[in-house]
Amino acid sequence: MIAALSLPTALTARSGEVTLRRATGDDLAALIRLMSDDPISAARGDRADAADTPAYATALSDVLADPANELLVAEDEHGTVVATVQLTGIPGLARQGATRLLVEAVRVSSAQRSSGIGSAIMRWVTGIAAPTLGAGLVQLTSDEARADAHRFYERLGFVGSHRGFKFLVPSRRSI
Amino acid sequence: MIAALSLPTALTARSGEVTLRRATGDDLAALIRLMSDDPISAARGDRADAADTPAYATALSDVLADPANELLVAEDEHGTVVATVQLTGIPGLARQGATRLLVEAVRVSSAQRSSGIGSAIMRWVTGIAAPTLGAGLVQLTSDEARADAHRFYERLGFVGSHRGFKFLVPSRRSI
Repeated sequence: MIAALSLPTALTARSGEVTLRRATGDDLAALIRLMSDDPISAARGDRADAADTPAYATALSDVLADPANELLVAEDEHGTVVATVQLTGIPGLARQGATRLLVEAVRVSSAQRSSGIGSAIMRWVTGIAAPTLGAGLVQLTSDEARADAHRFYERLGFVGSHRGFKFLVPSRRSI
Repeated sequence: MIAALSLPTALTARSGEVTLRRATGDDLAALIRLMSDDPISAARGDRADAADTPAYATALSDVLADPANELLVAEDEHGTVVATVQLTGIPGLARQGATRLLVEAVRVSSAQRSSGIGSAIMRWVTGIAAPTLGAGLVQLTSDEARADAHRFYERLGFVGSHRGFKFLVPSRRSI
């Protein structure tokens, strides 16, 4: 379902034009850097520790192989990855059978924040990606500590109508 | 990934034993009833209107066919469907490559609320399903109007650390 998105696509931000494209395995280092560049992600342990690289590489392979997921990156005119977002298409019965588009892992490099890149990406998600995929609802959660992000999503037409609950599973094991 | 769950399984609630099993196409009417039985869902338009049945049927087929999703129902000793929950397995890089288990569409029939069925299902999700699937995180959003549900999730060990944002896509069209 999510493969229907027409990518790459050019997006215009205040800082110039960026190209939004599907991530590949070659983007691993850039994706790790974008996570560790974010204080809240870093506080959760995503600190670009070399010992975590194999886990990130496995996760990246899993995301790229999953037909319900698209991991996207935005490149500036120099080919530098400056932002990323993950989209998941989720069918469901609620709201008269509306497909949901879940947005996770929105990250913009600290050097590019307030450049309009995040806004350009999210406008593409709500205005192009969701209608293309027949999604009736776009949803995401944002840490309560991210007050700026909340205003950002509200400006884009999102309504903070829900509380987002997380349960950390005590011990992970593989299937 | 999500097919690894061992189902059906027996769960014990205060009201007796229920059987948690994968939904089938035959559960359509019961699933529509569970949604319309919930005032907040009904306010969003899920009122078991006969005109919506085709959309629900299509959505149910889509969910059942999607390898990343499991739609589950709990049956009482008479074979009556009394609750449902949808699980989605989502790979991702964040939190050192933790797979997320997203919980959507938790519904317990009004006659069975406070019977312990919802709690038994959620304890199975966090204690059995998530570890079986190698998920590091279970997440869900709950409407801010559902104060009782929030206390319920907190008692189960969920932390309401996030704000849940929704964007209603103005016009839906199919791919």
